[in-house]
Amino acid sequence: MKYSIGLDFGTLSARAVLVDLESSREVCHSAYEYPHGVMSTNLHSGEPLPDGFALQHPRDYLDAIANMIPAIISMAGIDSRDIIGVGVDFTSCSILPVRADGTPLCFEAEFKNEPHAYVKLWKHHSAQPYADKITQLAELRSEPWLKRYGGKISSEWMLPKIMETLDKAPHVFENAVRFIEAGDWLIWMMTGTETHNACMAGYKALWNKREGFPSREFMSQLDPRLDSLFGTKVSDNIIPLSIKAAEISEHGARLTGLTLGTAVAPAVIDAHAASPAAGITGAGQMLLIIGTSGCNLIMSEAEHNVDGICGTVEDGVYPDLFAYEAGQTCLGDHFDWFVKKCVPANYTIEAQKQGISIHKYLREKAKKLSVGESGLICLDWWNGNRSILDDADLSGVIIGLDLRTTPEQIYRALLESVAFGAKVIIDHFEKCGIPVGELFAAGGIAQKDELLMQIYADVTGRTIHIVDSAEATALGTCVYGACAAGYYRSLAEGAKAIGKLRSTPFVPNMENHKIYNLLFAEYKKLHDYFGTGENNVMKRLKEIKNTQRI
Amino acid sequence: MKYSIGLDFGTLSARAVLVDLESSREVCHSAYEYPHGVMSTNLHSGEPLPDGFALQHPRDYLDAIANMIPAIISMAGIDSRDIIGVGVDFTSCSILPVRADGTPLCFEAEFKNEPHAYVKLWKHHSAQPYADKITQLAELRSEPWLKRYGGKISSEWMLPKIMETLDKAPHVFENAVRFIEAGDWLIWMMTGTETHNACMAGYKALWNKREGFPSREFMSQLDPRLDSLFGTKVSDNIIPLSIKAAEISEHGARLTGLTLGTAVAPAVIDAHAASPAAGITGAGQMLLIIGTSGCNLIMSEAEHNVDGICGTVEDGVYPDLFAYEAGQTCLGDHFDWFVKKCVPANYTIEAQKQGISIHKYLREKAKKLSVGESGLICLDWWNGNRSILDDADLSGVIIGLDLRTTPEQIYRALLESVAFGAKVIIDHFEKCGIPVGELFAAGGIAQKDELLMQIYADVTGRTIHIVDSAEATALGTCVYGACAAGYYRSLAEGAKAIGKLRSTPFVPNMENHKIYNLLFAEYKKLHDYFGTGENNVMKRLKEIKNTQRI
Repeated sequence: MKYSIGLDFGTLSARAVLVDLESSREVCHSAYEYPHGVMSTNLHSGEPLPDGFALQHPRDYLDAIANMIPAIISMAGIDSRDIIGVGVDFTSCSILPVRADGTPLCFEAEFKNEPHAYVKLWKHHSAQPYADKITQLAELRSEPWLKRYGGKISSEWMLPKIMETLDKAPHVFENAVRFIEAGDWLIWMMTGTETHNACMAGYKALWNKREGFPSREFMSQLDPRLDSLFGTKVSDNIIPLSIKAAEISEHGARLTGLTLGTAVAPAVIDAHAASPAAGITGAGQMLLIIGTSGCNLIMSEAEHNVDGICGTVEDGVYPDLFAYEAGQTCLGDHFDWFVKKCVPANYTIEAQKQGISIHKYLREKAKKLSVGESGLICLDWWNGNRSILDDADLSGVIIGLDLRTTPEQIYRALLESVAFGAKVIIDHFEKCGIPVGELFAAGGIAQKDELLMQIYADVTGRTIHIVDSAEATALGTCVYGACAAGYYRSLAEGAKAIGKLRSTPFVPNMENHKIYNLLFAEYKKLHDYFGTGENNVMKRLKEIKNTQRI
Repeated sequence: MKYSIGLDFGTLSARAVLVDLESSREVCHSAYEYPHGVMSTNLHSGEPLPDGFALQHPRDYLDAIANMIPAIISMAGIDSRDIIGVGVDFTSCSILPVRADGTPLCFEAEFKNEPHAYVKLWKHHSAQPYADKITQLAELRSEPWLKRYGGKISSEWMLPKIMETLDKAPHVFENAVRFIEAGDWLIWMMTGTETHNACMAGYKALWNKREGFPSREFMSQLDPRLDSLFGTKVSDNIIPLSIKAAEISEHGARLTGLTLGTAVAPAVIDAHAASPAAGITGAGQMLLIIGTSGCNLIMSEAEHNVDGICGTVEDGVYPDLFAYEAGQTCLGDHFDWFVKKCVPANYTIEAQKQGISIHKYLREKAKKLSVGESGLICLDWWNGNRSILDDADLSGVIIGLDLRTTPEQIYRALLESVAFGAKVIIDHFEKCGIPVGELFAAGGIAQKDELLMQIYADVTGRTIHIVDSAEATALGTCVYGACAAGYYRSLAEGAKAIGKLRSTPFVPNMENHKIYNLLFAEYKKLHDYFGTGENNVMKRLKEIKNTQRI
């Protein structure tokens, strides 16, 4: 018997899945909610946090593995020696400052009340001024790497977060021997070996397989104190995803119940790790992660310039392929906003009476509507637009309202709008030379919202395969673990073996598709009008709002 | 003691007010709900009605006066001989076919199941194809009168309604000696004298003081069977508003308890009748009627061409002045839609707990918001746009939504949008050469919604006076009655005496006005973009909707 474990570290909890590699079967799962959660108003010690902060306590990650791994070994009733590989996926960029031996500064008494000593979670948003500064300088210097990131550096990435620490907590910066991704750090703790993976370095730290990090000249112009950041406080020893990163150490074995020497794969970004679970084997297959926000991943053999996306990373998902990531900032979040803010009492009462969730109640009603019969179109920009406009200052629109408009009509228009948003991204990839074939979907909403998935199929005119696992990310991560152990010769081979799709994909209804093409033309016209500078009303409204908010 | 009675015939009920002319005091009120209401799905006999029908039973009007007038005489404890004048205002165009003696065809057994024999209420909407035909022919022939109606004939007016009868119920058309406004008909029943007022003829029947009705050539080209309509089935004996129409007949005295010979004024359109109640004495004072929909009335000494309004009628409100009517199809209707369709259960529960209406609850929350802080703008087109775009196919828009947008923010944006709509109309009048001075507001919403009225003041930068009467229309109508009796030498004199304004008008907050100017610029840009052909998305969505609605 040979098993692999996939460990998936999300925003609020971690999950583990054990896979029997011979039968490709998910044997069992475990989950662990972080005791400290996301600290955004206060540290656990009570220390108040500035606006936009989102911190985590790295102790929670260690507690997660110490709880989950023994639990699944015991649940499965197997010998831990039969577990040949471990994969770790993690949110990113979630970084922490550590000592030379990997001890987080926040573990030390001196730093325990210092917010900058903790993990800055991916959605820590207070580093925007530093991100702007990086973008501006890169534009000024025409840095060639800027185009790989759609022309704009995000405040969520590594360098802005480090610059913020340097600026606001210089003693943390001085004492940090490394700033490291939490995923890489966790592997260090399990194996005793410090590694840095190409996926996170590529997407979140401006690293490129051929060109490395941004130049020393650039960094020194950005801030003289940063001129040697890369290679010192940020390691430039970057490893690809398909190899073994390290092996479980004695300390790691004690911590997890795994066997000394078990192969551990390099860490990988959580969304990206789902690719093998979808059975994606190479170029042209698009993976859609559909949750509160959305992520679109596709690979190509040659490099193409695609503006307005999050990043292009060679070897970013599978070796020898260019992996492109685009995203929709706001996806399921729209629907949650709607049910919280816009659903009338009689609907809530009726849903309660029927004993179903308000989402389900609305979906049942929305399902009965014909395409186009409500006369509504939304722009799905309640939280700005990530791809292809890359503009956080855009906002949501509903058009076509009349006195007979019902809540379920607006709800359906919101569902349709995120599918239109996905189609803009797909069309853009194709325009940039990357053909998009069939679609594969994973994520909480893809699992449960059949109406939305049918709308995606009808809008895009493409068949959509749904990953048949409640833990697609952890499942995909097992493939990285098995590859690290040499069980598969390649990630693609592992994907072919492990990838699990529902037997019934969502097939487009071409009658609906015809009507959606008409509606999409209207969506695109409004998208361009409001999104590409013809009418910057949204930005002006935001400026007024910022001056008027008391 | 000298009194005047104002009779106000609305859509669902009639109201009467008795005014003591010497003290200018409202003595008492009475109201009467029409037993047959508005018949839109069935006749009272059960006969089903086609889509868009809105009929009334003229018996209800007779019952209304037979109930209300004795009631107020008795309530006030006065001698009916002290009532010197009666005024009648009525919805318009609400017409019925009658015999030579005024008997409605629907009173006869032969016609009692014939929908076209009843009163076609102002909002009877099934005559659109005939209205389109009139507009097209008038355009083709470059009829000079078309411009007085903003370039478009409404399906709510007299000629389309008669053409529909001719087409769908020719025996009704043949048997009708007259088609007459219900207001004129009611006066006929009270006085035994048939009259036709200039206000309704001007606004709703294409009549003009100098040019009369459309020419026989036009009518004959429209339909040969209509070539002599004006002067036969539609009377061309039109009288101005400031004279006595007739006197209470013996039959009228028996019906109402009024004294034989009491002066009765010509009928007047309900909205227009409110002008004297606002103390409006002449040109440049704009009256806003703010209810479920909105009406804007203003007068000028010289005639101006104003496109995009409902009508321009010389002597339409006061003699020797040109009266212009513009309108907002959807006003309070927006707010009702919102509270029914978009207010979440926790708001409903909290309002109930506080024992206040959901409107009041939302207004309290909306009042606390600073101008512009929500970053939202709406286009107030939930029921199309009457002025200045005159386009029923436009629809509502909300722009600037984000994940923190609250119900009260959207509610306030809706309030603001109708005020922006009013400002477009005001600005347009001024652009067309009609200066607009202070504003006067009447109507249910103007009476009770202080937040909305302050927003109107802040948006327009003008002081707004509120008519201080719950029955502004009936009160204004008393002035027409008193003028008919010769108590005042002119309507303006009567308006000066009777007009009642609240002592505290709404004065603009100029800080808010500055911000609203910025927001209005955005509103106007969107108004023009969606409303004047730059992007006809709303029309295209409506076309798709019409083909897709099952």
